[in-house]
Amino acid sequence: MLHFKAIGKIMGALLFLLGSLMLPAAAISWIYGEDSSPILISAAISLLIGLILFFSFSKQDQLIRKREGYLIVALSWILMTGFGMIPFIISEEVTTTADALFETVSGLTTTGATILTDIEAMPKGLLFWRSMTHWIGGLGIIVLTVAIFPLLGIGGIELFVAESPGPTSDKVHPRISETAKRLWYIYVGLTVICTLLFWAGGMTFFDAINHSFATMATGGFSTKNSSLAFYDSAYIEYVAVIFMFLAGTNFTLLYFGAVGKFNRIFKNDEFKTYSIGLLVISILIAVPIYMHSDIGVELAFRKSLFQVVSVVTTTGFITDDYTQYGSGVTFVFFMLLFLGGCAGSTSGGIKFIRHTVFLKNSWLEFKRIVHPRAIVPLIINGERVTGRIINNIMNFLLIYLMTFVVGSLIISMLGYDLATSLGAVATCLDNAGPAIGKVGPVDNFAFFSSEAKVVLSFIMLLGRLELFTILILFTPFFWRAN
Amino acid sequence: MLHFKAIGKIMGALLFLLGSLMLPAAAISWIYGEDSSPILISAAISLLIGLILFFSFSKQDQLIRKREGYLIVALSWILMTGFGMIPFIISEEVTTTADALFETVSGLTTTGATILTDIEAMPKGLLFWRSMTHWIGGLGIIVLTVAIFPLLGIGGIELFVAESPGPTSDKVHPRISETAKRLWYIYVGLTVICTLLFWAGGMTFFDAINHSFATMATGGFSTKNSSLAFYDSAYIEYVAVIFMFLAGTNFTLLYFGAVGKFNRIFKNDEFKTYSIGLLVISILIAVPIYMHSDIGVELAFRKSLFQVVSVVTTTGFITDDYTQYGSGVTFVFFMLLFLGGCAGSTSGGIKFIRHTVFLKNSWLEFKRIVHPRAIVPLIINGERVTGRIINNIMNFLLIYLMTFVVGSLIISMLGYDLATSLGAVATCLDNAGPAIGKVGPVDNFAFFSSEAKVVLSFIMLLGRLELFTILILFTPFFWRAN
Repeated sequence: MLHFKAIGKIMGALLFLLGSLMLPAAAISWIYGEDSSPILISAAISLLIGLILFFSFSKQDQLIRKREGYLIVALSWILMTGFGMIPFIISEEVTTTADALFETVSGLTTTGATILTDIEAMPKGLLFWRSMTHWIGGLGIIVLTVAIFPLLGIGGIELFVAESPGPTSDKVHPRISETAKRLWYIYVGLTVICTLLFWAGGMTFFDAINHSFATMATGGFSTKNSSLAFYDSAYIEYVAVIFMFLAGTNFTLLYFGAVGKFNRIFKNDEFKTYSIGLLVISILIAVPIYMHSDIGVELAFRKSLFQVVSVVTTTGFITDDYTQYGSGVTFVFFMLLFLGGCAGSTSGGIKFIRHTVFLKNSWLEFKRIVHPRAIVPLIINGERVTGRIINNIMNFLLIYLMTFVVGSLIISMLGYDLATSLGAVATCLDNAGPAIGKVGPVDNFAFFSSEAKVVLSFIMLLGRLELFTILILFTPFFWRAN
Repeated sequence: MLHFKAIGKIMGALLFLLGSLMLPAAAISWIYGEDSSPILISAAISLLIGLILFFSFSKQDQLIRKREGYLIVALSWILMTGFGMIPFIISEEVTTTADALFETVSGLTTTGATILTDIEAMPKGLLFWRSMTHWIGGLGIIVLTVAIFPLLGIGGIELFVAESPGPTSDKVHPRISETAKRLWYIYVGLTVICTLLFWAGGMTFFDAINHSFATMATGGFSTKNSSLAFYDSAYIEYVAVIFMFLAGTNFTLLYFGAVGKFNRIFKNDEFKTYSIGLLVISILIAVPIYMHSDIGVELAFRKSLFQVVSVVTTTGFITDDYTQYGSGVTFVFFMLLFLGGCAGSTSGGIKFIRHTVFLKNSWLEFKRIVHPRAIVPLIINGERVTGRIINNIMNFLLIYLMTFVVGSLIISMLGYDLATSLGAVATCLDNAGPAIGKVGPVDNFAFFSSEAKVVLSFIMLLGRLELFTILILFTPFFWRAN
């Protein structure tokens, strides 16, 4: 039996929280003299139903086990989407339900793909709520990563999130809620600093908060039609690069950094491949950008760095159209949609730790072929990785690619060309935002049919929740288990 | 120390065999009154160098171990390519070395992608040699599959090739050379029957032999510019479908069929997914073909069946342009390039057994998540598959996809669009022939630059030799091992 009462109580609390977080958006509406009733009504609905749910289920000391964990993860995002899209619908600023669904899922999954064709024409209150969905999504992912994913054993990376696993480990803090709280402080603190730095760079305070939300959640929604290219400011771009980079880093490592344990950061294999990888790719792509344009070295490198960090961390801000530098550069950016940031960050996608484990293990596999009787262990962060973890990670990679292929097939069957289908699905699964084809960096998702938008919304959800939490609900094993 | 003497002797014998097999092509040249000297000279060179090599290395009872096995596999195809391309070069019918290389590799790897723009204008002797490279390649793969791959443990499918592995198995025949011989009889016998049936359907005897070679090797070179569409004959198409299907089946099963043990065939899990898969895909694709055109049900189904069987078995004959039925159908055919036929057949690509193992295991993986303490074994062909094999197969799939991605990146950096890059690399790696983009079913590979042709030739070789036999030569482990 599933413990539905415990689940119901948690969902109630979540809805109440969601409703509360709509109130700042209503305040923004009121400050800018807009009609704040759509957001206020939405907040009231969420708060009311949240309270009803919360008090309908008495706390009976029901345990949250693995199976409840899966349902909680899936239902959280579904409920947040269902209620989070109400402001868009009531305000009639978004015309179809599919559009409202897509925009809200894109927000809560920190994807940042948009169906809005004129963002600047939207009321400020709604824009703020739109950015807030990013920030809530990022917050949610930190909770999941710390509190739920290790319980569920998601895709083989659970052990890398809290750094050194096993009996010899010194975890960040023994109590999960304490750990989560510390990571939230990091998240909130960085959001505040990022806001102030954007503000200092010439953004309005409103734009600074919005962009800071989108940065720290690795979301990518902008309040400007041309994204961060609007500001044309080296300062703002470098600030964004730094905070996108931090948001894509394992928050446990950021905590170590905050308390001065820098050696823990530099000994981390995932952080090494992540930071060196970003730098190397940025330098390599700066070359064709420099050669294709009439600009200086710094600007070429900055354009490359910004776009690479933005796509790899799955943020999705844009200051330059990377598809204009030939088929090779376009292809590289398409491939970058399959990287993802670090485990334990707000970034989506496959994540560097999985690539690191797979590539290192594949290399060792050749050694194992030549020396079949030798024991050739895979070492990550100074510790041996078990065969079970390697197996889980390879399985995750293949299921990820299969999801990508099946998703692309469905979109192409709805009548879209190859590059657009592959690009849209890759970027939604990766929770990035920009892609290739008709959904390149300067395009938006408005032209898709409602069916395609629903499919892409589902794919964003799959990617954000590490596939298995959603897919397992479609297997008989989950429902038949005792 | 590598046992180079044993390797040298085998290479000598192989070259001698290659030279001997050029003689029929020279005879065809002579019969049709063409200049037979290019092929005769090539044959003489191969025979001579083959003899020199063979007698330079005294037989010192050197063992063929695993490492020699890898070198023999790689060197065999490289040597056959080097000498097999001489007739094209001497005759000056193919203008560049890259073209001659591409066409010969495409033949020997049974790919069937061509750089010829007017096939029918070629001398008959050269066309015969071109088809012969397919047939030699197919023959070679049967030897490798039976005699070498089980020794090397290639990509986890070695145990499925000779059907039931392990102590309880009754292998086809205990002695490897005896097994190989029996499978050659099947190969030669089916080639003869296929030739006669094509001939009976109205092909010239010359065309019948050529197409039979290309069919049984799952190659795809045709002697007609429009491939099998030239004949516009339901009879010829159905004959081709049946023999492509047989050529894509595990030859061990064909042997069981030949000796009347049909129950062994129908109990084979790979054969089940292969045959049912082909039928289901053909029916599904017949629907859009029927709806897009003004043709009857039989013709729509036949067009679908032919193209599906041709692509999945990695043959590559064409009777219809599948890219004309919309983006969905095109995408499906692109995906079919990642299937491959059965292990132990002449078909290339990933092969059904790997997909079967991966999909069945992934499904069970969900069960393992729900029941972490239960033992959930994967059963294929009535026997339990070890974790090591599952691991090897997942690793193979990922390395295959990585090769595909890196190959596509290189081709796109050489200046080709996304669909063309992805399509060309997918079809070369799969050893199929037709693809999407500018290398669709009615196109050819002539327009690629020499660099691209060399890269694609290497990719065909990687695919044909199951990746690891080639890739391992680029690791230090192979050369450093004692």
